[in-house]
Amino acid sequence: MAIHEYSPTIYHAVLGQSEPVLRISDGDTVITSTVDNAGHDANDIRVAQEGPNPQTGPFYIDGAEPGDVLAVRFDMMKPNRKIGRASVTVAANVLEPGFADGILSDRTIYEWELDNEKGIATLASPEFEKGKFVLPLSPMLGCFGVAPMMNQGIAATTASTHGGNMDYNGFGEGVTVYFPIYVKGALLFLGDGHAVQGDGEITGMGIECSFDVQFTVNVIKEKWIATPRAENNTHIMAVGNARPLDQALQQATTEMFRWLRDDYKMTDQHIGVILGQCVQYDIGNVFDPAYTVVCKLKKDLLP
Amino acid sequence: MAIHEYSPTIYHAVLGQSEPVLRISDGDTVITSTVDNAGHDANDIRVAQEGPNPQTGPFYIDGAEPGDVLAVRFDMMKPNRKIGRASVTVAANVLEPGFADGILSDRTIYEWELDNEKGIATLASPEFEKGKFVLPLSPMLGCFGVAPMMNQGIAATTASTHGGNMDYNGFGEGVTVYFPIYVKGALLFLGDGHAVQGDGEITGMGIECSFDVQFTVNVIKEKWIATPRAENNTHIMAVGNARPLDQALQQATTEMFRWLRDDYKMTDQHIGVILGQCVQYDIGNVFDPAYTVVCKLKKDLLP
Amino acid sequence: MAIHEYSPTIYHAVLGQSEPVLRISDGDTVITSTVDNAGHDANDIRVAQEGPNPQTGPFYIDGAEPGDVLAVRFDMMKPNRKIGRASVTVAANVLEPGFADGILSDRTIYEWELDNEKGIATLASPEFEKGKFVLPLSPMLGCFGVAPMMNQGIAATTASTHGGNMDYNGFGEGVTVYFPIYVKGALLFLGDGHAVQGDGEITGMGIECSFDVQFTVNVIKEKWIATPRAENNTHIMAVGNARPLDQALQQATTEMFRWLRDDYKMTDQHIGVILGQCVQYDIGNVFDPAYTVVCKLKKDLLP
Amino acid sequence: MAIHEYSPTIYHAVLGQSEPVLRISDGDTVITSTVDNAGHDANDIRVAQEGPNPQTGPFYIDGAEPGDVLAVRFDMMKPNRKIGRASVTVAANVLEPGFADGILSDRTIYEWELDNEKGIATLASPEFEKGKFVLPLSPMLGCFGVAPMMNQGIAATTASTHGGNMDYNGFGEGVTVYFPIYVKGALLFLGDGHAVQGDGEITGMGIECSFDVQFTVNVIKEKWIATPRAENNTHIMAVGNARPLDQALQQATTEMFRWLRDDYKMTDQHIGVILGQCVQYDIGNVFDPAYTVVCKLKKDLLP
Repeated sequence: MAIHEYSPTIYHAVLGQSEPVLRISDGDTVITSTVDNAGHDANDIRVAQEGPNPQTGPFYIDGAEPGDVLAVRFDMMKPNRKIGRASVTVAANVLEPGFADGILSDRTIYEWELDNEKGIATLASPEFEKGKFVLPLSPMLGCFGVAPMMNQGIAATTASTHGGNMDYNGFGEGVTVYFPIYVKGALLFLGDGHAVQGDGEITGMGIECSFDVQFTVNVIKEKWIATPRAENNTHIMAVGNARPLDQALQQATTEMFRWLRDDYKMTDQHIGVILGQCVQYDIGNVFDPAYTVVCKLKKDLLP
Repeated sequence: MAIHEYSPTIYHAVLGQSEPVLRISDGDTVITSTVDNAGHDANDIRVAQEGPNPQTGPFYIDGAEPGDVLAVRFDMMKPNRKIGRASVTVAANVLEPGFADGILSDRTIYEWELDNEKGIATLASPEFEKGKFVLPLSPMLGCFGVAPMMNQGIAATTASTHGGNMDYNGFGEGVTVYFPIYVKGALLFLGDGHAVQGDGEITGMGIECSFDVQFTVNVIKEKWIATPRAENNTHIMAVGNARPLDQALQQATTEMFRWLRDDYKMTDQHIGVILGQCVQYDIGNVFDPAYTVVCKLKKDLLP
Repeated sequence: MAIHEYSPTIYHAVLGQSEPVLRISDGDTVITSTVDNAGHDANDIRVAQEGPNPQTGPFYIDGAEPGDVLAVRFDMMKPNRKIGRASVTVAANVLEPGFADGILSDRTIYEWELDNEKGIATLASPEFEKGKFVLPLSPMLGCFGVAPMMNQGIAATTASTHGGNMDYNGFGEGVTVYFPIYVKGALLFLGDGHAVQGDGEITGMGIECSFDVQFTVNVIKEKWIATPRAENNTHIMAVGNARPLDQALQQATTEMFRWLRDDYKMTDQHIGVILGQCVQYDIGNVFDPAYTVVCKLKKDLLP
Repeated sequence: MAIHEYSPTIYHAVLGQSEPVLRISDGDTVITSTVDNAGHDANDIRVAQEGPNPQTGPFYIDGAEPGDVLAVRFDMMKPNRKIGRASVTVAANVLEPGFADGILSDRTIYEWELDNEKGIATLASPEFEKGKFVLPLSPMLGCFGVAPMMNQGIAATTASTHGGNMDYNGFGEGVTVYFPIYVKGALLFLGDGHAVQGDGEITGMGIECSFDVQFTVNVIKEKWIATPRAENNTHIMAVGNARPLDQALQQATTEMFRWLRDDYKMTDQHIGVILGQCVQYDIGNVFDPAYTVVCKLKKDLLP
């Protein structure tokens, strides 16, 4: 149950089998930091040349083996500088074909001023009167996951069963995310912090910022899950990463169904009653090659 | 601003150009009732032979003309009998291809006991210990809308720009829904009440029940909207009805964009800031031929 | 086995339960004509006010009842005037999101000169040197079908299990198309002739022209099919009409599977061998609300 | 213009930045072989342990650099043993949700006898009378491509802009395929030969066999293409690899549009005329995570 402090000096644009930056044990905690989507650190200096979404890590977890599950609890995450940045152009792929013609295709990036103490983000762009837009901070990590199946190396701009760029605003402080482990040591990567982000990351950026992050890992031996699962104080969640949204929703619902059947020993009738009347769906990333749908259930509905 | 009481004696399985059951004026209120998805009324007697989702109406609104918008405010809606019914089989189309093979394909319908005073639904099926499942009531109408474009007649099992079977659990008491008007009189239909329903209506049924409903109509002259809009105390909402989910999301986002630009006079930059960091998506029906996605925005973010 | 000549005086923009224009018997042949997509007849005079794709019919077939199948053999179809018209703008929905911004959104319609004797269409637009584009005629009907299920009325701009706007360039002279019958008399509609059309009708128009058409109907009693089937001299075909393309392909493949199992008494192994190594897919309409995929198999592979 | 003979001793399940097995020059020809999808060679001995679709290569092409295009002409390809193997179960993802429940989910693999001289494949499974199924050979490579963008490593079971598992039965002898080059040397991989394969590879296998292959490479300097292009004697082709099919079709059509505009200097009007009336779509893989659509145009329509 050691606590490690790790200051990254190397970043990866691909989640794959890179050389681990730190070996940790089951139950250990790591205090580290992530750069923003463009590779800028807490001093707003570009320290990662490759991207987008350069990742801190990978962390090698001793004892983690293919066929196990890695639980990652995010004990703390918060922006570690005062400047965040966001785009303002709604992506063509979330608009009706042809409609995007008539709208802004501005590549301008707006700056936001982040205040962790007050818990707010203030739009500081000269085009807008300062203070006109003030949003509550709701820090989340957009991209994190483990080394993918079949020894692949997958860019930090997309997502699959190993996690990756899910951009789900429910993945903030206090959440525990579970990943299938495909390689020895699991190889955990993380990055792409957003101080605030609407559903879907439909302008292609949340309010992007470098982050301080503390997380704790646990290995669950000999357990198979098909796609990431998660839980917080109130809900359990199953995550589908695929395109189109329909397929992401199918993956998420199927994984939730398995979870209820295999872990909670619910009958198919019981599952049908609960999911039919109580299931909730959230939408993660709808900007990148794979979209993300989260299938949620309140914990107080579980046996 | 008259108040009409209308007890239906005829129901329609198709939203089209049927003979109006009542002519009302702009601003009028109607107190009426709807049968359940299977045509059973407050006495649980089958009074509508055609279905599914037999509709009360159509109501002809004087002064409503093609090119106007119809606002329908649901002042009250609640189950009007003690028995609700729901299925327990998760639909194959929300599960991964092939996964449904291994699950229950039970056509059994479970009964729920509804208590408006306590505000709860209790699963009363003999297979389950009574009282094991108690859910808070959250009454909503699954299917309502106006006569469709191009003089079509569309079944109450699907949805399009005229509304229809959207099965969105945000369409409960207090919501106002806006429809494009395609024919003289608008011809408003409503039905398919659910005492409770999870996102997506993924077992093909909420807790289905006959309802008492009170609504008030307003005609907004010479206004064009492409697809239904709605609002409640806290949010404005744009609705996309299409398949796949991606297209429903595109329609909903596009309609929200138009709304912000045309009605709220926001610039494209302003819209990009707000939608990018604050948009919310909800999922309506993912069971029927057209799926429903709702694009929401908090009212306190509006100018 | 009568032969009827019918000169239309009324046209319909919706396939539904309109008053029949002619009652015919099982085995009868009809010689008639269709107007072009914009309602212009053989003299290029606009005779149909509603559209798009105004339909000739409906023809009531005596003895046709719900639960039967209607076979329509197209004995002859050809343009009946010298002028055809086509658009030149590739639709935004077949291009990558955002790409359409940079291309022509020209609504200009180009004229083509049609020559049935030589079997060619020549682009006659002043913008192009005449004779620069000469294409072989390949006449087809873009939209035809029967009254839809559940007493619906569906616009001639879309397609479903009743047929409709399939825009499949394999539906030319000599093809027999089979439809499920939903209402007494079947109510057959036809129109939207194209002298030439690429796959998908991706500019939203083939070379549109009024047509002379001769067809023969046969009722197959007590036979259920889920979606249109067809055959010509060389192939059998099953048609899926849905969106997205994936769903249209699923419908078409499923219907082909049923056909081979139920009518040709093939085992699942046999079907797997044949479809796996020999199936062919063609793409019909990818412009309108429902897309069309055709699943084909060579007849010489059948038992 | 050297001719190299290369007998593989190593195979890769991932298209990425593996150590090259051979360095060749622009214009060179390679005579080599590929193992079947399961790693079996010409003697039907399993020589590749990882898979599926173990790849021969990668071949490093001197002078090939990011921002160039690699042309690969397949001079010859043919099965190099007498035994091919194919599955018989139609995949759940090409059937309507729920329909797959009722069909064979047989994992049995059937053997086919391949005869290059007669040009036929004969089903030799004991369940079937030998000689009952005889199909003409139509050899093709299911999976080939270059190292992917962003230094990723992508499994040979899926496809993207770098090529991969496209399973298009038009990629046989005589075709030239063009790939964008993402890394120095391009790194060409190839494998997964099919003696015969229906559209879509809907049973997950063609008639799988080890192959002898001869190909010739050419580097086209400083040319950008977004996704693979190809040509044979009669057609030019643009390939979209994505899911759903709609997106694959959008990619393919967009790439064809760019090709006509940039290389053939056609105006948007000209492109609209040609594509609208003459475009052809073929369907490649609809079994794996990314689907493949090919947008084709006859060469005699080009300026």
